[in-house]
Amino acid sequence: MEDEISSFFESSPPQKNMEEILENLNEFIKLNSSSQGGRRIVCVTSGGTTVPLEQRCVRYIDNFSSGNRGAASTENFVKAGYAVIFLYRRGTCQPYCRSLPDDPFLECFEFSDKTNIQVHGLWILSVSYSHLEAVKMAVMDQQTAVAEGSLLKLPFSTIYEYLQMLRLIAEALKDVGPCSMFYLAAAVSDFYVPWKSMTEHKIESGSGPLDIRLAQVPKMLSVLRSNWAPKAFCISFKLETDSKILMEKATKALRKYKVHAVVANELSTRKEEVVVVSSSGNVVVRRECDKPESFVEDNLIRLIVDRHSTYIKESHN
Amino acid sequence: MEDEISSFFESSPPQKNMEEILENLNEFIKLNSSSQGGRRIVCVTSGGTTVPLEQRCVRYIDNFSSGNRGAASTENFVKAGYAVIFLYRRGTCQPYCRSLPDDPFLECFEFSDKTNIQVHGLWILSVSYSHLEAVKMAVMDQQTAVAEGSLLKLPFSTIYEYLQMLRLIAEALKDVGPCSMFYLAAAVSDFYVPWKSMTEHKIESGSGPLDIRLAQVPKMLSVLRSNWAPKAFCISFKLETDSKILMEKATKALRKYKVHAVVANELSTRKEEVVVVSSSGNVVVRRECDKPESFVEDNLIRLIVDRHSTYIKESHN
Repeated sequence: MEDEISSFFESSPPQKNMEEILENLNEFIKLNSSSQGGRRIVCVTSGGTTVPLEQRCVRYIDNFSSGNRGAASTENFVKAGYAVIFLYRRGTCQPYCRSLPDDPFLECFEFSDKTNIQVHGLWILSVSYSHLEAVKMAVMDQQTAVAEGSLLKLPFSTIYEYLQMLRLIAEALKDVGPCSMFYLAAAVSDFYVPWKSMTEHKIESGSGPLDIRLAQVPKMLSVLRSNWAPKAFCISFKLETDSKILMEKATKALRKYKVHAVVANELSTRKEEVVVVSSSGNVVVRRECDKPESFVEDNLIRLIVDRHSTYIKESHN
Repeated sequence: MEDEISSFFESSPPQKNMEEILENLNEFIKLNSSSQGGRRIVCVTSGGTTVPLEQRCVRYIDNFSSGNRGAASTENFVKAGYAVIFLYRRGTCQPYCRSLPDDPFLECFEFSDKTNIQVHGLWILSVSYSHLEAVKMAVMDQQTAVAEGSLLKLPFSTIYEYLQMLRLIAEALKDVGPCSMFYLAAAVSDFYVPWKSMTEHKIESGSGPLDIRLAQVPKMLSVLRSNWAPKAFCISFKLETDSKILMEKATKALRKYKVHAVVANELSTRKEEVVVVSSSGNVVVRRECDKPESFVEDNLIRLIVDRHSTYIKESHN
């Protein structure tokens, strides 16, 4: 397993800006672990990873994931006092922006002659009343979280970028120990084309069907738990479309990767309920159906934060 | 070929809202073809199509395309007096939004206490001075284009949605004749998994490598030219990563699909230059390097609009 993992990293294309990312990361961790005798830090991963099929990439395999779960969970973690490292797929749903329409610049704002003026030396834009709350959240809450050092956003696209950044974050969080958490909501590819066996140029069409052989991505979760950040509290996710195999797979993952809990969700009902699978049993977490502004993540993060508190206490004994 | 195409459509999953889309489309075409004795209408396609690998789709193959070419071209067509049907991949680059940063809600706006006020009964938001022009364009020019009936935006994700909508648009534009244009900048998948042979549930990992066999997508360009909209002016695109085979492939496409021009672009230099391949010879179109705010699309659309004018004149003789 260790061999597979080191050969995956050795054969990965080099990532840009890794030094700059590490610098921002270390600064963020230092700020938060020294404030008030040590604030909890969670790394939330969000969105799907891509798998390039060509080195000069035109085509790639992707995992469907809007990033809604990760974005909603991030908001709840910030509210619970956590500092959040939000490792997200470029272009997916952002914290505090979930209720904006698809095309906010077409639907939320007005820039009419009447309002195209300066007030207190600032240029202003008017916001349609119906979108006021959503825009306020998108701008104000997001900027406040970043300014207060509660939110660090790091984007990725490929499986190579994702895994290299996850390793970087895990190693940087090692000293934070039990006060750190990994909340791995990203949809990580199970299969990939090893970089060295990949064709350089765009695959040519026009000569019949195309056969692709994909190798398995080595399971990084084991090595995250055993080597990268063994003292961190760790939550993984399992998504299936077939409810019959979901619980079995989630239970198997809990044992195999020795994580503290697995959040099991089925594609069609994932916005209504999830099951938190752990060694203390299974807990069904639901959205509060009678409240239209309620999300399953509100109750989920409450439960996860409680579990994390217990874990921290037990670690100090 | 016709058989392949009808079986592709017959086996496609049914699309939602097609009636509503058709209604909006017909209204848009009616408005524009009756204004000033008939305005020219172009369908600009933009972004990549996805190919689902499972019916309850978690994984899919995607084509890399930011949608920048389509968005920039749309702005230029509107400026040249065209009505534009912008058929774009969800989440890709939008007209008038190209110079916004990746995370505009974090970087462009301020919603401080000082400005969280009402002016003339409107809620306002202040715009950072450095982003003022970009935000003004994103909001004002886009809303103006839509309000004046110069821009209709229609989103797609899968190859099925794209081809069904393209057919719908082509058939709706049939009566506009030579005054209509197809500017096919979208990166359309060459390969797909036929819906009926697709697995229903998420492909299971954990049992060795995965082999995928992809069938060729039937070439719709031929049938668009011969049946759907035979009188429309038609521009297709060819993207390659290997410059050695690019011109040969573009010339071959021109002959095979009987389009009026093929825009040949190489992945690494596509923002600097393209070659317009047509029966009257090849023309290299470049960005004006001495102007930082100049794009290759400015000169490209000027050329295409000229060619379209000639085509319309010749059609009336």
